[in-house]
Amino acid sequence: MPVGETSPPERGEFELIRSVFRPLAAGQPGALNLTDDAACLTSPPGHDIVLTADAIVAGVHFLPEDPAEDVGVKLLGVNLSDLAAMGADPLGYLITTNWSKPIDAEWIEAFAKGLGTSQSEHGIGLLGGDTVSSRGPMTLSLTAVGAVPHGQALKRSGARHGDVIYVSGTIGDAALGLALLKGEIEAAAGRREFLIERYRRPRPRLSLGRALRGLATACIDVSDGLLADLGHILETSSVGADIELTAVPLSAGDAGEIGVADRIDAVTGGDDYELLFTVPPSQAQSVAQAAMASGVPITAIGKITTGTGATLHDANGKVISARRAGFQHF
Amino acid sequence: MPVGETSPPERGEFELIRSVFRPLAAGQPGALNLTDDAACLTSPPGHDIVLTADAIVAGVHFLPEDPAEDVGVKLLGVNLSDLAAMGADPLGYLITTNWSKPIDAEWIEAFAKGLGTSQSEHGIGLLGGDTVSSRGPMTLSLTAVGAVPHGQALKRSGARHGDVIYVSGTIGDAALGLALLKGEIEAAAGRREFLIERYRRPRPRLSLGRALRGLATACIDVSDGLLADLGHILETSSVGADIELTAVPLSAGDAGEIGVADRIDAVTGGDDYELLFTVPPSQAQSVAQAAMASGVPITAIGKITTGTGATLHDANGKVISARRAGFQHF
Repeated sequence: MPVGETSPPERGEFELIRSVFRPLAAGQPGALNLTDDAACLTSPPGHDIVLTADAIVAGVHFLPEDPAEDVGVKLLGVNLSDLAAMGADPLGYLITTNWSKPIDAEWIEAFAKGLGTSQSEHGIGLLGGDTVSSRGPMTLSLTAVGAVPHGQALKRSGARHGDVIYVSGTIGDAALGLALLKGEIEAAAGRREFLIERYRRPRPRLSLGRALRGLATACIDVSDGLLADLGHILETSSVGADIELTAVPLSAGDAGEIGVADRIDAVTGGDDYELLFTVPPSQAQSVAQAAMASGVPITAIGKITTGTGATLHDANGKVISARRAGFQHF
Repeated sequence: MPVGETSPPERGEFELIRSVFRPLAAGQPGALNLTDDAACLTSPPGHDIVLTADAIVAGVHFLPEDPAEDVGVKLLGVNLSDLAAMGADPLGYLITTNWSKPIDAEWIEAFAKGLGTSQSEHGIGLLGGDTVSSRGPMTLSLTAVGAVPHGQALKRSGARHGDVIYVSGTIGDAALGLALLKGEIEAAAGRREFLIERYRRPRPRLSLGRALRGLATACIDVSDGLLADLGHILETSSVGADIELTAVPLSAGDAGEIGVADRIDAVTGGDDYELLFTVPPSQAQSVAQAAMASGVPITAIGKITTGTGATLHDANGKVISARRAGFQHF
């Protein structure tokens, strides 16, 4: 029971919100049609349960003018990306939303549509949650649940000296998409759309994460920026890394035309939601096959060392010195 | 990567917050020391996983002047109460927090202390989460995870004609506590403290919920108000109920002195976090034993009927007509 008054029209709004979200739970027996206190999920036998929770706030983690549907896709995507980094299969999700007053029903419907599109793609559904409203920016919090065969979850702590460092897809696109939206840079129409889509609608690499079970010694998804997230692996695994900056895959195409500053922007930009992982060199063939089978391109970008922190090299082995915001973790 | 600028001092604050929350994950192997993308939990064999998520907002669900420690106790308590209503054993929890800027480190430390006290009582710990900040009221969202033997989760849908309706503990205390805090009523010092404690530090009835597995045909925790939550059982089970208003247990003691209006306030007040459940009359002895074993008093307050909605009677069977806010669901 809220401390403040709950007037009948507001109650009506909450009914509306429930009616928008209820279809997202259809076909999910564990959601109990959202009528119970909690969701009830039969855990696949021999599996561990994997849980992650991320919140996004209007004006902080997404732009107020971002389409609501994309915000739905993004909120589920960033959480499923965390499951992908653990090698887990998604089972479902819970959502708690603090809407801004006055409630914008159209926005909420479009947001739910985005969630619906994304959950269908991954064969999951809404399991439960809570909806509140207040004066202040929208806060959207999502908990994703997954399962991984017992003991096979990918962690950050297993990187060893000599392991090859790989990254999936291309890096830096989302940061460029954000810069485009903020009017800081320009791009041709087709490329502009691609980059903004990469920023707004991240695609969690679940099939790749699954394929890396038993192969990757450490894995993380790139959300804070490739170098920052690599730093988390290095710290947790107590190792260092040599990265060949020019090997980091960019979507721009001809690598020869891209300067060091742009490359540094790419590896410090964040919001890529690609997988960054380490594999012993003896498994190079297996990992190439796993990536092929999952349909996600991967690129070797460096090696794990006995040192601490990450060192950047150019193609000729020359150390690149860079003092950038993204480096302060190292 | 936030859309806005993340300046070094703010980064420092987040490190501080992490250092406050990390001890709450100590001894939880599944939390992976909060260093990974997600928590990894070994599900007890033969059990279903139970998940619930609730959010509370400053000024809406708790008073800005409520002690931060109590807010921590309450946030975990209301979520564990949902697990109790399903008959589940708690396994752990994730938390996402949207702090108000400027961040109040002392408040956060006291809040974490409250979580710590409550989690110790229940033998669980923090598994993961996310922390963000923005201008706007604090939004604190918690996802609790539990387990229940396969197929034994208590639901709202099983109440049948003739079942006896029970409630645990006493009803209406929290609403009186809130009224005291708002200065709407007065009470003697000892009783004042008791009522405010009932409002601020709910005690989830986990042991009772566990004991009701295989006994209760339907169960819910009282959060919106006894009548409103009874309404959820009635609707989901497609039944009606006769409630003897004077049988609803109140903490005041001598029932003869309490008027109908006060009793109506009690059953519509909310925030009780007691269990409301139905049991076939043939199980009366078993349920009395289960309650005794769990150390939680229970009281029979009525019966399930073939009708719709709840009808209130006095001790002589006379129908009490009441048009109150809490009745609008019926």
